[in-house]
Amino acid sequence: MDALVAPVSRSEEPSVERLSRLAGPDMAEVDALIRARMDSPVPVIPALAEHLIAAGGKRLRPLLTVAAARLAGARGGGHLKLAAAVEFIHTATLLHDDVVDGSERRRGKVAAHLIWGAASSVLVGDFLFARAFELMVETGSLPALGILARASRVIAEGEVMQLTDSHDLNLSQALYLQIITAKTAELFAAAAEAGAVAAEAPTAEIAGLRDYGLKLGLAFQLVDDALDYGGVSERLGKDAGDDFREGKATLPLILAVARSGPKERAFWTRTIETQDQHPEDFKRAREIVLETGALESTIAFAHEHAEAAKAALQRFSPGPWREALCDLADFAVARAA
Amino acid sequence: MDALVAPVSRSEEPSVERLSRLAGPDMAEVDALIRARMDSPVPVIPALAEHLIAAGGKRLRPLLTVAAARLAGARGGGHLKLAAAVEFIHTATLLHDDVVDGSERRRGKVAAHLIWGAASSVLVGDFLFARAFELMVETGSLPALGILARASRVIAEGEVMQLTDSHDLNLSQALYLQIITAKTAELFAAAAEAGAVAAEAPTAEIAGLRDYGLKLGLAFQLVDDALDYGGVSERLGKDAGDDFREGKATLPLILAVARSGPKERAFWTRTIETQDQHPEDFKRAREIVLETGALESTIAFAHEHAEAAKAALQRFSPGPWREALCDLADFAVARAA
Repeated sequence: MDALVAPVSRSEEPSVERLSRLAGPDMAEVDALIRARMDSPVPVIPALAEHLIAAGGKRLRPLLTVAAARLAGARGGGHLKLAAAVEFIHTATLLHDDVVDGSERRRGKVAAHLIWGAASSVLVGDFLFARAFELMVETGSLPALGILARASRVIAEGEVMQLTDSHDLNLSQALYLQIITAKTAELFAAAAEAGAVAAEAPTAEIAGLRDYGLKLGLAFQLVDDALDYGGVSERLGKDAGDDFREGKATLPLILAVARSGPKERAFWTRTIETQDQHPEDFKRAREIVLETGALESTIAFAHEHAEAAKAALQRFSPGPWREALCDLADFAVARAA
Repeated sequence: MDALVAPVSRSEEPSVERLSRLAGPDMAEVDALIRARMDSPVPVIPALAEHLIAAGGKRLRPLLTVAAARLAGARGGGHLKLAAAVEFIHTATLLHDDVVDGSERRRGKVAAHLIWGAASSVLVGDFLFARAFELMVETGSLPALGILARASRVIAEGEVMQLTDSHDLNLSQALYLQIITAKTAELFAAAAEAGAVAAEAPTAEIAGLRDYGLKLGLAFQLVDDALDYGGVSERLGKDAGDDFREGKATLPLILAVARSGPKERAFWTRTIETQDQHPEDFKRAREIVLETGALESTIAFAHEHAEAAKAALQRFSPGPWREALCDLADFAVARAA
């Protein structure tokens, strides 16, 4: 398969193109598995799951499982069921998150709980979570099961932490990192680690791929949090401002607050702590986040993690899979440009 | 240990006394495991879990895992972690159910979601569910994992089914049975089956214990549904009437509707379908359920299942564990007297 992949110059705009192409055949099988296993004789279940899963997104996490398995030399197909399980766990957490946050949109569509009700979203999340474990049992890999069970538990802990602490203006950078590690980076790490385990990779390679996933997940989340303040460019994503409006203390906000004078502090206290917001407040929030350099620092921090992710792959011989995973790390941060 | 157990005459009032005594030492270890493994550095998690788990109840499901394992000759302690996992799965489903149903009380206490919020209940449910799988991975038994993963999925399907169909006055008896099998009996069946698997019992014994659990679970649910209409005695439990008020089509209602004349039908249509209820309606509902013999039929049906549960144990040699499990089946239905 490698021979089919044209060399791609590193100077091009970073994208997941090369990775998607390389992983295409595996991901087609993962997709078929996802569709087959989200089925149920209870009609609401596939309908609701389809709504979210068909909306797609980049399927980053299962892609990570596949790529890690292939980079580690997987020959069989054991990693495919694990990849589908990873996507089910992710989808279950999205369903529960949207209920918990009262989010109105997800992947460009109306959030499932607004169509089928919160009760169905909770229960279909439970269904997908259980299905993930059924798929993992079928692979027969207890270590992979352990990795993804632990990740699922850590994600729940991260979500509860976020729920408890997210409106705290003085949330420390350390606690913020702990939260995004648990709620986002852990599943990236576990997805890559499980893929390596499925490939029966040596311990050091498993650890390297876990580390890659962890750093990549942090880079992604940091950039997402930066983009929620509109990034550094003038062009604002249409969903920018959600974190501000929900009063979530993410790194751009935490750094901006720390670097704010008394006048700006009063602004943050009113808008975030008291949650007394007016329509024009986000514009002002974005200005402060830019003026204080908080956004730039957040993005620089994301770059550090993307570089650390790539460094974690240095133990592997050069080749198309390693290059594709490096592209992915570059892509994670290039989105902020 | 058997020698310590005094013979109990079958003419005494059925109770779980003998079973609790026999399983006491194992259950003390299960309890310690539950307490140790519901802990988390995120304070809300043990606080919320403690609220529900300390309230206790009879710990029927883990008791079933322990008893099945012992009846099947378990020597080691592998079944203890499975029993704790079973209780975690059950607790997770209770947390999610109470959010889904908007229930106000659970185990005689204010429901957790009314204290910590629905979001925390959903996420702590997820935590306990993941913890259950971590515990199962530690036992190293893939077959037990498969049994409990499947059960978790079937429970979610049952809950969604109930959500969709429960206000249907013409819900068929078959669909009602399908719902209570999925949402209640499946976990009883899986709890017993997993215990037998942990004891490395022969296939026929595993199947027998699964069948026992399934029939026992159905007997329990049928009696619960009968008790929700106050049972046959005059004495009404203080929580009686919940199903009626929520408009849940359970067997007493389904049978009463089928046996109702036009006047009673109009009453059901108003109170259940239209959900237009007045305070005195439950008294009238109970009268119809009694007059039509619907309550008696429900309890008779529960008795059939309790007998079938006991019959499923006939392949085992007589002994204290078998007797104790027979007591449990008798106890399940004696509650309706």
